[in-house]
Amino acid sequence: MKKIQIYDTTLRDGSQGESISFSLEDKLHIVKKLDDLGVDYIEGGWPGSNSKDIELFRHARDLKLKHAKLAAFGSTRHPRHSVAQDPNLQALVEAHTPVVTIFGKAWDLHVKLALGISLKENLDLIRESVAFLKSKGKEVIYDAEHFFDGFKADSAYALATLTVAEEAGADLLVLCDTNGGTLTSDLRERFQSASQHVKSRLGIHTHNDAEMAVANAIAAVQLGAVHVQGTINGYGERCGNANLCSVIPNIELKLGMQSIGKENLKQLAQVSRSISELANLPPRQDLPYVGKSAFAHKGGIHVSAVMKAAAAYEHVDPALVGNERRVLVSELSGKSNVLYKAAERGLKIDKSSPAAKLVVDKLKEMEHSGYQFEGAEASFEILFNKLVHNSKDFFDLDGFRVITEKKGAAESLSEAVIKLRVEGIEEHTAAEGVGPVSALDRALRKSLTTFFPCIRELRLTDYKVRVLNPESATDAKVRVLVESSDGRERWSTVGVSENLIEASWQALVDSIAYKLKKEYGSKGKGTKGASNE
Amino acid sequence: MKKIQIYDTTLRDGSQGESISFSLEDKLHIVKKLDDLGVDYIEGGWPGSNSKDIELFRHARDLKLKHAKLAAFGSTRHPRHSVAQDPNLQALVEAHTPVVTIFGKAWDLHVKLALGISLKENLDLIRESVAFLKSKGKEVIYDAEHFFDGFKADSAYALATLTVAEEAGADLLVLCDTNGGTLTSDLRERFQSASQHVKSRLGIHTHNDAEMAVANAIAAVQLGAVHVQGTINGYGERCGNANLCSVIPNIELKLGMQSIGKENLKQLAQVSRSISELANLPPRQDLPYVGKSAFAHKGGIHVSAVMKAAAAYEHVDPALVGNERRVLVSELSGKSNVLYKAAERGLKIDKSSPAAKLVVDKLKEMEHSGYQFEGAEASFEILFNKLVHNSKDFFDLDGFRVITEKKGAAESLSEAVIKLRVEGIEEHTAAEGVGPVSALDRALRKSLTTFFPCIRELRLTDYKVRVLNPESATDAKVRVLVESSDGRERWSTVGVSENLIEASWQALVDSIAYKLKKEYGSKGKGTKGASNE
Repeated sequence: MKKIQIYDTTLRDGSQGESISFSLEDKLHIVKKLDDLGVDYIEGGWPGSNSKDIELFRHARDLKLKHAKLAAFGSTRHPRHSVAQDPNLQALVEAHTPVVTIFGKAWDLHVKLALGISLKENLDLIRESVAFLKSKGKEVIYDAEHFFDGFKADSAYALATLTVAEEAGADLLVLCDTNGGTLTSDLRERFQSASQHVKSRLGIHTHNDAEMAVANAIAAVQLGAVHVQGTINGYGERCGNANLCSVIPNIELKLGMQSIGKENLKQLAQVSRSISELANLPPRQDLPYVGKSAFAHKGGIHVSAVMKAAAAYEHVDPALVGNERRVLVSELSGKSNVLYKAAERGLKIDKSSPAAKLVVDKLKEMEHSGYQFEGAEASFEILFNKLVHNSKDFFDLDGFRVITEKKGAAESLSEAVIKLRVEGIEEHTAAEGVGPVSALDRALRKSLTTFFPCIRELRLTDYKVRVLNPESATDAKVRVLVESSDGRERWSTVGVSENLIEASWQALVDSIAYKLKKEYGSKGKGTKGASNE
Repeated sequence: MKKIQIYDTTLRDGSQGESISFSLEDKLHIVKKLDDLGVDYIEGGWPGSNSKDIELFRHARDLKLKHAKLAAFGSTRHPRHSVAQDPNLQALVEAHTPVVTIFGKAWDLHVKLALGISLKENLDLIRESVAFLKSKGKEVIYDAEHFFDGFKADSAYALATLTVAEEAGADLLVLCDTNGGTLTSDLRERFQSASQHVKSRLGIHTHNDAEMAVANAIAAVQLGAVHVQGTINGYGERCGNANLCSVIPNIELKLGMQSIGKENLKQLAQVSRSISELANLPPRQDLPYVGKSAFAHKGGIHVSAVMKAAAAYEHVDPALVGNERRVLVSELSGKSNVLYKAAERGLKIDKSSPAAKLVVDKLKEMEHSGYQFEGAEASFEILFNKLVHNSKDFFDLDGFRVITEKKGAAESLSEAVIKLRVEGIEEHTAAEGVGPVSALDRALRKSLTTFFPCIRELRLTDYKVRVLNPESATDAKVRVLVESSDGRERWSTVGVSENLIEASWQALVDSIAYKLKKEYGSKGKGTKGASNE
């Protein structure tokens, strides 16, 4: 089966997307996820342009990648520098990646305009830069920037830039539709000309400005490209890059070629969603293959038919990409999902019991009002135990008050006061924090630690806020997700309210309840000095 | 110039999109907007399936459309009904539209599975239904549902269904990729077979399940289709329909054919955004041609070049589709970005002045500590004026206190108290809100409205929270983005702090400062009754 290389540039081109900015931690997470997914190349960044990217390459060296090769990205040498003295090329070498991707100009207009040099000089830049990187032992991928526009303007020159890169030893030539406006028909013609002109293997790099990035990438593969560059979820500058979450399944399931392989393909929906979480962008429900709506059936005419024969209404089986069918008006799917989820966590329930119906109904109602239990399994488990086993709260809240105060130009200060009872014993205390949620969290834990010493081990490791209906502005509902750890296990909890403090409170209380359940079992409220069972 | 018909089905297929539901009022608004835009057909709904759609057609009769023709949508007759007694066909006739679009089955699998009749009987259904509607004086558009999958399964039968519809008098045959999974290369082959087989004019209807809807529609036009069906913003079931906001400019600006015409094309970005408002969905910034990011430039390497020659970096002129170029201020960029941004907003500064350096340095420092000014241009402008023109605050804050209280199991309540002075006159007031930020926002505006009545017009239209270092959990820094509107303009502001209330406060204050600057100019603090300059 023909193998197509997948080259991911989420961290470089993808992070050019408006409102995307990844922290170093985010980037390292993403590198690992992409490696697990089985992509062949991961472009980590542009070390010559961004000092943060240098840091990434330094840390990435310690990651033991299973399959993917890291690539550093940069441009051909500056017209005024020799290759040996060019800071950009130096930074590429010093990134210590096995692969370097350099772009050179294929469009005469850009040579004159952006570089301000002669067409001949640009060929020298390309030749020398590629040869220099080859001499340093790198695998060199050559990106022919603006190839398709360049070909339209001066086809002989665009082709000449490819020849020079080929002769200098580039391992692969990638034809780029950098401005993203090329129609599939034009791209096909120009790609064919290039493939007749050079002997090298070709790759394709497309942007979505005419909404053709994926179709163009696939058309190039059909014409012989062996390498596709793109980003997860199509993130990228302007209208984004070719979306690998569509390119990969199109290659695997429609062209009958191999990229990451059928087994890895099942991770795709999960990878798409977790990278959108790291980008702090709401996952797009309508994304092909991986979106939550991609296999959702609405409208009376379809639903019963879908259940008869899914193949008649779905272009591929959702399980192949790790997604699932949803029938939007059916309660059956909800129930089987919930029971599946419960079984997965070792929670036992009889399918046909009234309790099962109670759980399904309650979850539906809560999801409708904004809760999300995917990624908040501890809250799911607590809710389940309350409804099915009638488990009790570990404490009773009398009340709390959280105050944030600002005096003149000084920074705001926050303080929380809390009064609660554990088996009738009252605790009334207060704490400060850097913000209102921090203050509330501290006050709550302070008040409970005397009863349940194990709470000392609890740390909050992640805190996320999503505004659910942003158009309602400060009156909008917010969903808070809290991740906690006790050094041995991590768990996540959720809260939803129009009041951010209330939503945070729900998630904090669930987090503590989960910890106490783990330590003291299901016997409900503990006592001072209750021991681990 | 060759004319391509645009057939909009936002109201029917588009409203199948998950989380889309239009009221009758919304639909009538949309009909008018589409007519103004110059589309040729507007599919209003399916009167035989949805009683709300019947109401739409009743009201739509009173609209005086300038150009567009209304179409009612429905299926061929039911196998057990004669055409004269079929309720669905009756409803189509009674919709009193000049155009009726009916779909028939082109895929043998669906004939057997969904209709449960013989292949021959299905041909009768198509023939009789088309002939009946023609006898009622309708323009009949025939949608060949699942044509491309049907052709793959049994090409002779799929073509036979077209012949029958043609012979019965259909005015146009539309080939549909109903499941949306057809690759462009396959679609081209099958489209060509159909166009060789029938004499009728052909149309194309595609879905986006393989992320090829737009490319497929354009490929069909290049092969002779004279009619494209799609939806505004690509709304639709699962992954959506062909996005007319990309199809139309591709036809007008890339194929050199005519659809709505160059003059109307300038409305496109506006129509896209207002229909997303009516659908109550946030406008997708990365939409080709019409999205807010479609012509946004980020990254130092581009910006100085874009300023030299936009055509080198933009596939079309944004003004042609009513969009605009934006240069984003981000930490990747240097001085030229900042100065361009300033110039764009009419802020004057000498490139080589110490003030210019001050602005660039301050922005870098703030971005490093978590601020982000792309998408918060109003905060950029306020900061710029402070640094360059030494502009003064409109009020002095003595202090505020925000209290969130919870009693037992009741929902939390929030209240804010604020004390501030405008030109020495003190205002001390309080307000409640659904959460702490809402309470603070209300108290702030309440206290200022007496001095600056124009604040009454101000509405917050969007509120976003991003936790910047989530691993620090509730002690993490948060960035708050607030979007505001006064009914004429929208602007965005930003705040960053470890304290969410403090971060929100900064963004709220900037928002109000921007409004006041707009109304009262740069003279600093206003007075009670200050008038518009």
